[in-house]
Amino acid sequence: MLTSEPGKPIRVALLGCGVVGSSVARMLVEQADDLAARIGAPLELVGVAVRRIGKDRSDIPVDPALFTTDAATLVTAADIVIEVVGGIDPARELLLSAIANGASVVTANKALLAEDGPTLYAAADAAGVDLYFEAAVAGAIPILRPIRESLAGDRVAKVLGIVNGTTNFVLDKMDTTGAGFAETVAQAQALGYAEADPTADVEGFDAAAKAALLASLAFHTRVSGRDVYREGITEVSAADMAAAKEMDCVVKLLAICERSTTPDGEGVCVRVHPAMIARTHPLASVRDAYNAVFVQASAAGELMFYGKGAGGDPTASAVLGDLVAVARHRVSGGRGPGESAYADLPILDFGTSSTRYHISLDVDDRPGVLAAVATEFARHDVSIDTVRQHVLTDPETGEQRANLVVVTHRATEAALAATVDALAGLDTVAEVVSVMRVEGA
Amino acid sequence: MLTSEPGKPIRVALLGCGVVGSSVARMLVEQADDLAARIGAPLELVGVAVRRIGKDRSDIPVDPALFTTDAATLVTAADIVIEVVGGIDPARELLLSAIANGASVVTANKALLAEDGPTLYAAADAAGVDLYFEAAVAGAIPILRPIRESLAGDRVAKVLGIVNGTTNFVLDKMDTTGAGFAETVAQAQALGYAEADPTADVEGFDAAAKAALLASLAFHTRVSGRDVYREGITEVSAADMAAAKEMDCVVKLLAICERSTTPDGEGVCVRVHPAMIARTHPLASVRDAYNAVFVQASAAGELMFYGKGAGGDPTASAVLGDLVAVARHRVSGGRGPGESAYADLPILDFGTSSTRYHISLDVDDRPGVLAAVATEFARHDVSIDTVRQHVLTDPETGEQRANLVVVTHRATEAALAATVDALAGLDTVAEVVSVMRVEGA
Repeated sequence: MLTSEPGKPIRVALLGCGVVGSSVARMLVEQADDLAARIGAPLELVGVAVRRIGKDRSDIPVDPALFTTDAATLVTAADIVIEVVGGIDPARELLLSAIANGASVVTANKALLAEDGPTLYAAADAAGVDLYFEAAVAGAIPILRPIRESLAGDRVAKVLGIVNGTTNFVLDKMDTTGAGFAETVAQAQALGYAEADPTADVEGFDAAAKAALLASLAFHTRVSGRDVYREGITEVSAADMAAAKEMDCVVKLLAICERSTTPDGEGVCVRVHPAMIARTHPLASVRDAYNAVFVQASAAGELMFYGKGAGGDPTASAVLGDLVAVARHRVSGGRGPGESAYADLPILDFGTSSTRYHISLDVDDRPGVLAAVATEFARHDVSIDTVRQHVLTDPETGEQRANLVVVTHRATEAALAATVDALAGLDTVAEVVSVMRVEGA
Repeated sequence: MLTSEPGKPIRVALLGCGVVGSSVARMLVEQADDLAARIGAPLELVGVAVRRIGKDRSDIPVDPALFTTDAATLVTAADIVIEVVGGIDPARELLLSAIANGASVVTANKALLAEDGPTLYAAADAAGVDLYFEAAVAGAIPILRPIRESLAGDRVAKVLGIVNGTTNFVLDKMDTTGAGFAETVAQAQALGYAEADPTADVEGFDAAAKAALLASLAFHTRVSGRDVYREGITEVSAADMAAAKEMDCVVKLLAICERSTTPDGEGVCVRVHPAMIARTHPLASVRDAYNAVFVQASAAGELMFYGKGAGGDPTASAVLGDLVAVARHRVSGGRGPGESAYADLPILDFGTSSTRYHISLDVDDRPGVLAAVATEFARHDVSIDTVRQHVLTDPETGEQRANLVVVTHRATEAALAATVDALAGLDTVAEVVSVMRVEGA
């Protein structure tokens, strides 16, 4: 790595000046003295790449001459490039160009890293520069550095996280108000907790990208967004929330990274889906748009990290922590950890992963139905923990039906899917109303 | 720093082979391949310094020939020295000798660092080696690295932690069983949660040392154990626990590091004392021997870190994380952050620090007493939040007395102490039964 002379300013380029970028710019200016003291050299903001120059940015205490639409040139004139634009392109080309020009990179871009992290790592390695991205997962919460560095001498078994604030806000509100998904999302949008197009959040894409990054670091194995099994929260109904309440659980969108041993050997399974979790579990009390990540390691045991998962200032805090680290390397030499993928564990098929399940069935209210249902579970090797039956009377026809709620012991996804298929095929089962996973036992 | 050739073994000396040391030794052997892959070079354990050679250590998978009583020679023959002996001497001399011989140091020694950290930092700086000590605070919980590195671009306002597992176990049991201090400590000793001589824990010395380390890193200011105001839990009574319950609070021994502005300017106040904390506060649910640290930073907002605060394997996890970091520096160059004390904030007098208080008074049961009590609070500028009065009948004399519980708004320690002195001097006040701080509002 090129080492700057002590005291010589370190040139910083900022790509993006939205919610996070403007917080970063402000903190760079307001905390310049502290940052210089901590780094051992002053930082010099050499440019801020924006999409449009005309916009009023008088609230950002930065020389207006520093704003530019020419990001491509800007990245060639900096020692460190901070990228908070997001998205795959043009972020990828800009960062690769920055790295090729000898700049270290600090980015919050989970989508790009989950899509093409190894390319960026390889480029950074070849150029001898740093690639840091603490802000890409769980905003202000220091979670990547602890996994990558503090737990570097341990063996991580599982990471279980609430890593998307929008979905946590929506599920939390559905839990407390009893409202449905659509109206709660509309409320979240009105409050600024959900985007106009909430797809990336509510369909779990954002959480899946973060899960891929967590799993890569935790298991020293390449995991991309494509390796992550993903279900969003759009199908979660008020009835599901009520069912969770009856179980003394809450519904959370969880990112789950597991190292497990199957008959085919050891591997990694990464999944994002809504799940019931006991109200006594520490993750259950994570409210609003907060994030939390639970880590289970063989020597450390259970650890939890909790804090704000999004927002300008919290994300900027993570960006600036990385900035100080890579700037220190410029001053004193050395580099942070690069890609660690030596373990190269296989990505296990989702069907091999196992958990517990809560299954709600509408069935005929007549003798023998429970026996038929129980037989299908047994036939597929899914062991039943509890069964509850409610008799329901159709308000229009007066016909009686029964609702069966089955909670299983741990079983594989493959066995559960086969069971559900078989149940749906029984003529005594009117409908498989819902299937929800139960985590954190 | 001397950089080893890639692939050449890095010589590691281990000082101490008790609970933590034997976990470290075992993990070094069992995870040798993973550690080598993560570091880029194998580790070679060159010796384990112990007090006595004769002891049976057959459960530790280490060549018996490596055990030595000659720590002084051992530290001169290693690239990295791990110290898990504890205590000031001879640990200090051994580490200074190791550093002078060009070794990096990983230590869990909170007492030594809180007593004489700057000397060690200066020596490490002069020798160009690393001094890492994640295991010194809160066992397995990554807390020093996040404060030192992840929050390096932020401004920490407050750190509030449960950092001593023994006292947390004792207070938790007193809360759940209603038992007194002495019998609960005896139970903790029987279960191995408290030492035969529990002074360092129950008098708050251990927590004070950790508070000093947290404050030093959080505020970029030298804080030694002597700068920490300290009260232990030996005076906490079953009555205090019951009073906390009535307030919907629990009693915890808290380490509190605050940056605050007084009429004399900005400074740092660090204190360790038992305090009531609302049951809804995340720290209130930290049970048994777990630890948790709450951090408030200006951009990141509130963060919490939770996990096992002690024990062989959890502490060894933190030691090995540091070991990987300093070993990577041996392989790839660079050094971790050294001492950062540039802010050099004054240590504020404890009297200037402020919180809320719960005061229990036994008073005469006659008109005018409440007015007299309230007048003393007002005279010392301590604003009352709530007052409750219970009338008690002495079972022997039949005499009626009243118990007054006053909860104040935020006031300084100096004002509160003056108020309590004045109250004790009132002839209508029979006794100031207890004064307890109320935190986390």
